[in-house]
Amino acid sequence: MRATIMYGPHEVGIENVPDAAIKDPTDAVIRITRACICGSDLWFYKDGPAVDHQAMGHEAIGIVEDVGSAVQTIRPGQLVIMPFVYSDGSCLFCDEGLQTACVHGGTFGVGGEAAGAQAEALRIPYADGTLYPLNVDPDDALMPSLLSLSDVMGTGYHAAVSAQVGPGHTVAVVGDGAVGLCGVIAARKLGAEQIIIMGHHEDRIALAQEFGATDVVRERGDAASERVHELTGGFGVKSVLECVGSEQAMNTALGVVRPGGAVGRVGVAHYDTLPGQDTFYRNVTVSGGPAPARAYIDELLPDVMSGKIQPGKVFDSTIGLDGVPEGYRAMNERQSLKVLIRP
Amino acid sequence: MRATIMYGPHEVGIENVPDAAIKDPTDAVIRITRACICGSDLWFYKDGPAVDHQAMGHEAIGIVEDVGSAVQTIRPGQLVIMPFVYSDGSCLFCDEGLQTACVHGGTFGVGGEAAGAQAEALRIPYADGTLYPLNVDPDDALMPSLLSLSDVMGTGYHAAVSAQVGPGHTVAVVGDGAVGLCGVIAARKLGAEQIIIMGHHEDRIALAQEFGATDVVRERGDAASERVHELTGGFGVKSVLECVGSEQAMNTALGVVRPGGAVGRVGVAHYDTLPGQDTFYRNVTVSGGPAPARAYIDELLPDVMSGKIQPGKVFDSTIGLDGVPEGYRAMNERQSLKVLIRP
Repeated sequence: MRATIMYGPHEVGIENVPDAAIKDPTDAVIRITRACICGSDLWFYKDGPAVDHQAMGHEAIGIVEDVGSAVQTIRPGQLVIMPFVYSDGSCLFCDEGLQTACVHGGTFGVGGEAAGAQAEALRIPYADGTLYPLNVDPDDALMPSLLSLSDVMGTGYHAAVSAQVGPGHTVAVVGDGAVGLCGVIAARKLGAEQIIIMGHHEDRIALAQEFGATDVVRERGDAASERVHELTGGFGVKSVLECVGSEQAMNTALGVVRPGGAVGRVGVAHYDTLPGQDTFYRNVTVSGGPAPARAYIDELLPDVMSGKIQPGKVFDSTIGLDGVPEGYRAMNERQSLKVLIRP
Repeated sequence: MRATIMYGPHEVGIENVPDAAIKDPTDAVIRITRACICGSDLWFYKDGPAVDHQAMGHEAIGIVEDVGSAVQTIRPGQLVIMPFVYSDGSCLFCDEGLQTACVHGGTFGVGGEAAGAQAEALRIPYADGTLYPLNVDPDDALMPSLLSLSDVMGTGYHAAVSAQVGPGHTVAVVGDGAVGLCGVIAARKLGAEQIIIMGHHEDRIALAQEFGATDVVRERGDAASERVHELTGGFGVKSVLECVGSEQAMNTALGVVRPGGAVGRVGVAHYDTLPGQDTFYRNVTVSGGPAPARAYIDELLPDVMSGKIQPGKVFDSTIGLDGVPEGYRAMNERQSLKVLIRP
C-alpha cells in the first residue's frame, strides 16, 4: 500500500510500504477514505521528523476492513472516525474523557508505535476504545466536517473548554489557522458574546467572521494586546484560546487575558516556561494541552449532522495521495489553510 | 494609637502613630478587636519590608467607629470582618467576586496606601465594598473562626476552588501551615474523598487529620511525589492545593498532580517561571492567586456559625499588641502555627 513518509525538513514523499495488518488482538485495520494535513505536521515539516522515515498523518475517516480476535464492538464495514490518539477506552483517564492521557495510548503519525493516516490503510490499536462509528454514507457531503472531529474541531473545542468559555464571555482567539477558526465555532457554541479573532490573513478572517467572530485584531505584539484592551473596556478578555503554540503567541495570550481569566492552550507548546508571578497576582488560569478529540464527538456530532456548525469549511483544497508533498508545501507557505486528502 | 511597624528583616516593633482617621468620604475607621499574623507577613520578616517603616497586618475583625459622608451601608457600632484587600464593591471584578483585582483596590499592611491591621485602629478605604458586617457578639467564642474568614480560610478555600476540587476527588495539600490546614477543611467541604496532607510537623498533621485529611506524606522532594503516587494507584492526584509559594513547593505540586488535574496555588509566588511543556502534554491546569476572601464569606459563614467547620483552631496562641514582635519570632521559627492578636 502507499503511505506518506517524511525524510527530513521539507522532504515528504509517497512510498510503497507493507500493507497495514492486525498485530494485536485488539487491533483493527481501516481503509482510509479521508485524511488531512495538520498544522502540527508542519512543525515536523519545518524542524524535521522525530524518527527516520516517519509515517505521517493522524486525522482520518475510514472503513473498517479487519478486526482482531479481541475486538468486541467495532465491526468490518463500519465507517469510523479515527481520533488522533489511540486509547484503550477503559482506563481511569479514558473514563474521565482524557483519552490523550490513556495509560495504553499513543499518537498516530508522530514516529511512535502507530503508523500514519496519510496512507491507503492503517492499523488501529485498541480499536474498541479508539474508533467512533458513524451512520453516514462514506461519500456524504458532511465528510469534511466529520473528518474535523478527528482533531481540528475537537482541538478548537478543547481550547474553548480549557479557557472556560461560557455564556456572555469575552473571548480572544490567538491564531487564524484551522484550529483557531474551529475555536471560534467552539466559543460561539459555548455562548461567548464577543469573539475577537487575532490574525493576519484576510480569507481566514472572513471565515472566522462567518463562524461567529465579532471583532478582528490584525495587529501583532504589544499593539495587538492594546487593541484587545480597547475592544474590552480596558480590561482584556475573560477567555483566550491559544491556537498556535509559539512563545510569541503564548505571550500574546497572557497579555490579553484579564485578571481572573483563563488561557486554553492547544497549540503544541514550543516554549519551555510560563511566567510564574504575573499569572499568580492576576489569578490567571492556564489550562489545556493535547485535546481528547474522541471525548468531544458525542457533543459535537449532532451539530455537525444538523449543519449547525460547519467546521469542514476549513478545508480549502482536496488532493489525492500523490498531491500530499505539494499539500505540505502549500500549507507551510500559507497558500492553503488546510488540505483534505482522499487516498 | 499603637501599631505594628516593620523596620527590617527580623525587626518588628510597636509604635505610637497618628490615630486612624477618615480621609476620603468612602472611608470607615474601625477599632480592631481581633487581628493576627499571616504566613505571608513572614516573607517580609525574612526578606525585609517593602517600604521603610511598613505598617503590618491585613486580617482583622473590628467595630466600626466612624464612617465618611459617602458611606451608605456600613454604620458605626457594627462588628465587621475586614478582608485582606479593600475593594470598591462595584467594579467589573468585584461584581464577579474577584475583589483582589478590584480596579480601585489594594492590600492592607503591605506598604501601599492602606496601613496595617496589627494595630488599635485602621482606616478602611471603600468601606461599603470592603467590610462584611456580622450579627455576633464581639466576644463570641467563634471569633477565631470568624477572623479566619478575613484571609486564611478564604485562601485555603480559593486553593481548593482553583484546584477544581469536587465530589470524590483525590487531593493533595502541599504545606501544613495554617493555609494548608484550611485547605484541608475546604477540600472536605467540596467533597474530596482522599485528602493527602504533605508536611513535617506532627501537631499540624494531627490538626489536618482532625480537619479531614485521610493520608499523610512526610517525605520531601522526589520521595514525597513517589509516596503520593503510591497512595493514588500510581496516577497522582486530581487536585493539588499549593499553600507555600516556594519553588520547591510548586515543583512538588506539579510532580504529584495527575494528567488532566489542576494545581490551585495560593502561596505567594516566590518563583519566576512555571514549566511550559510538561504541563501542556499532561493537560495540567495551573490556577489561583490572591484569594478574594470577601467573595467566599457568604458561602463559609454558615458553616462557621454552625460549628461545622472550625478554622479558628489554626490559632494556637493569643497575644496583645505588645506580644506581636515575639509572635513574629515564634511563627517564623515554627514554634507557633498562627498567632491571634487582641490589641
